[in-house]
Amino acid sequence: MNEPIVDSSQSEEARRRRFSAITTARIETLADGVFAIVMTLLVFDIRVPGADAVAAQGLASALTSVIPNLLSYILSFLILGVLWVGHHNQFFYIKRADRTLLWINIIFLMAIALLPFSAGLLARYGREDRLALIAYDVNLIIGGVLLFFHWWYATRDNHLLNQEVEPRVRRLVVVRILIPPILYFTAALVSLLSIDIAILINVVVPLLYIFPNRVDAIFRRI
Amino acid sequence: MNEPIVDSSQSEEARRRRFSAITTARIETLADGVFAIVMTLLVFDIRVPGADAVAAQGLASALTSVIPNLLSYILSFLILGVLWVGHHNQFFYIKRADRTLLWINIIFLMAIALLPFSAGLLARYGREDRLALIAYDVNLIIGGVLLFFHWWYATRDNHLLNQEVEPRVRRLVVVRILIPPILYFTAALVSLLSIDIAILINVVVPLLYIFPNRVDAIFRRI
Amino acid sequence: MNEPIVDSSQSEEARRRRFSAITTARIETLADGVFAIVMTLLVFDIRVPGADAVAAQGLASALTSVIPNLLSYILSFLILGVLWVGHHNQFFYIKRADRTLLWINIIFLMAIALLPFSAGLLARYGREDRLALIAYDVNLIIGGVLLFFHWWYATRDNHLLNQEVEPRVRRLVVVRILIPPILYFTAALVSLLSIDIAILINVVVPLLYIFPNRVDAIFRRI
Amino acid sequence: MNEPIVDSSQSEEARRRRFSAITTARIETLADGVFAIVMTLLVFDIRVPGADAVAAQGLASALTSVIPNLLSYILSFLILGVLWVGHHNQFFYIKRADRTLLWINIIFLMAIALLPFSAGLLARYGREDRLALIAYDVNLIIGGVLLFFHWWYATRDNHLLNQEVEPRVRRLVVVRILIPPILYFTAALVSLLSIDIAILINVVVPLLYIFPNRVDAIFRRI
Repeated sequence: MNEPIVDSSQSEEARRRRFSAITTARIETLADGVFAIVMTLLVFDIRVPGADAVAAQGLASALTSVIPNLLSYILSFLILGVLWVGHHNQFFYIKRADRTLLWINIIFLMAIALLPFSAGLLARYGREDRLALIAYDVNLIIGGVLLFFHWWYATRDNHLLNQEVEPRVRRLVVVRILIPPILYFTAALVSLLSIDIAILINVVVPLLYIFPNRVDAIFRRI
Repeated sequence: MNEPIVDSSQSEEARRRRFSAITTARIETLADGVFAIVMTLLVFDIRVPGADAVAAQGLASALTSVIPNLLSYILSFLILGVLWVGHHNQFFYIKRADRTLLWINIIFLMAIALLPFSAGLLARYGREDRLALIAYDVNLIIGGVLLFFHWWYATRDNHLLNQEVEPRVRRLVVVRILIPPILYFTAALVSLLSIDIAILINVVVPLLYIFPNRVDAIFRRI
Repeated sequence: MNEPIVDSSQSEEARRRRFSAITTARIETLADGVFAIVMTLLVFDIRVPGADAVAAQGLASALTSVIPNLLSYILSFLILGVLWVGHHNQFFYIKRADRTLLWINIIFLMAIALLPFSAGLLARYGREDRLALIAYDVNLIIGGVLLFFHWWYATRDNHLLNQEVEPRVRRLVVVRILIPPILYFTAALVSLLSIDIAILINVVVPLLYIFPNRVDAIFRRI
Repeated sequence: MNEPIVDSSQSEEARRRRFSAITTARIETLADGVFAIVMTLLVFDIRVPGADAVAAQGLASALTSVIPNLLSYILSFLILGVLWVGHHNQFFYIKRADRTLLWINIIFLMAIALLPFSAGLLARYGREDRLALIAYDVNLIIGGVLLFFHWWYATRDNHLLNQEVEPRVRRLVVVRILIPPILYFTAALVSLLSIDIAILINVVVPLLYIFPNRVDAIFRRI
């Protein structure tokens, strides 16, 4: 008659699986939604030239004024790609969530959703005023630090994971997550001397993450 | 030879599972989509300063005029986070849907999707005119009351749940859902005396929900 | 050694299940995405009043000019809800897709994604010029007819279904899908005599679909 | 007692399945999100006529000026449909992802997310200036070539597939993917002679892909 006792071990198991399945699924859906929208909204920074500009100088010439916005679009899209892949790969290990993890995600997404503003600032004032570049880099540093904190919190002990993370893998991922914020911090400092070199550092960062590397070797072994 | 008869008990089971699985899955996808978009659209309220303002006062000074919009962005993003987590956690118990539940969700999302307007109003006129703050709080009260109604309707009896909700848990969740609308109502009243205190109440609400609490203890026990 | 022969029955089964699972899942994800975005974009039609208007007449008075846009928002949101629930319920039966079904969906979504334009037209010119109302209704008629065509094509024979649709249910759904386009057609005609009555018909349509009805009784029996 | 050794074969299996399941699921979610948003944002190119234009010429006449934008909307929506169906069908075979595949997807989505800009350019200047049409076609060529590269990379060997792709099918798909970029390249060349014929080629492309064809016969056999 003691239904809770009879039922307990099996339903415990079932409940735990269901709980973990739902929760990270919806975090990932929300995150994918925010990334998809931010990536797509970046295009609004590239405006179709107005009729006046086209009448005065012709379409070809009017389109060249759009090039900085196009480069800013490509740069920000690639960085969003780096952050999305990083977030994505973490959930290879993370299968459960708690309130703290949900909120780290929400605040991470708050930094991501701010990027269309920072990218707009960069496209418009980035070459003249180092403040625009610094604001952009600060935004990316906040995003990167939150992604690190996400990994650090989730892998601290095993209650959110479905398999142990080897300490070697954990450290390797920490290094890979922290390199971009460190480079963006460097870029912000360098901009005080030379905006051009600072921009170059920003361009290099995503390129470091597009090509296969040691982390992929881990995935391949699995 | 009577295939429907032989098949019945098993296919009944299969149908029920399939029905429930699909239906709440798509509600959650639609809701996650609306939340992701609303969160991301909030950024449009933070405009890159125009060339005129920058030429007149410099970029640093022009950027300070963006601060109220940035604070309104952070505030609204956090509140959307609270509402999303609340909606999310309800579906830990709710596994089936009927037309009424679908429509409570749709009308809840209608209130959520209105927030970029209310947040824009708050950012632009919130410090001068209490009406902007009241409109913002009314929007949040409507959202909160619909979230309560969602929980109340779904847990009234067990036909939409996959496990019984203990009365103690049910009441605890009701209290937690109703606190924000009550505080927003209080803030709207207080704004008649002091806008600053009313804004402070608005700032405090999300902070109450970010940190782990008694509801999480329930999830941890499961 | 003849691996394809040994394997055939089992892998056939596996392939079919996988095929059906992927395909309708992504149609539903795309559709939910479009619905979520269209619902959310409707809010852009409700503009925060400009500083000039507020300075001249005060915020309260400036906000009253937003009321038609708010009503248009509510109306369009509810109709999108009706169409989403209708689309959603069809996939209770439809479990496989072919190219034709994909394209009926894409063209259906093309009509849905046009609604922010039509709703904007209605909000701005709907009370003065019947053409705005007719354009809005034509948009909704196209959406409704495509939803009917979707149901008709998918249930024509059983190759896309996972359970047979009883002829009685099929007919009931056809009637329920065709009522809104017929009423919108009526509203377009009536607008030649009275815009007010035409608007009233538009308001009544979603109300017919929010409350539980005979279709729900079918779902409940399953 | 050696838990890793005992566990290995089974957990290997489990890990592989989980890895593949998660990874393509999130690529597809991100892609569906970007497609849904781009499709929906296209509508912003169709503006509600301003009060001045309506006062001067009446709503009917003001609306006719919107027709090129409406046609550009339909055209771009259909092409996005073609690309979405192509992307969708590839994942019938692709079940695993690696870093390279993730990045091919991200860069593919970068081209897709640029379409609202190119479509706006086409709608505004397409009939007067061939450069607008060429820019639009270059955007579509980049998208098409990336979709080809996606297929080529994923089917090169079997490590990302869950079933072998018959060489005959692989070639057929290659041909079907490459036809649109070749036609868009042709249209760009033809635009030097006649913009009208170039536009006609653009209109014909999606029509080639809406109706059932030989690829569907393959799916039907499976």
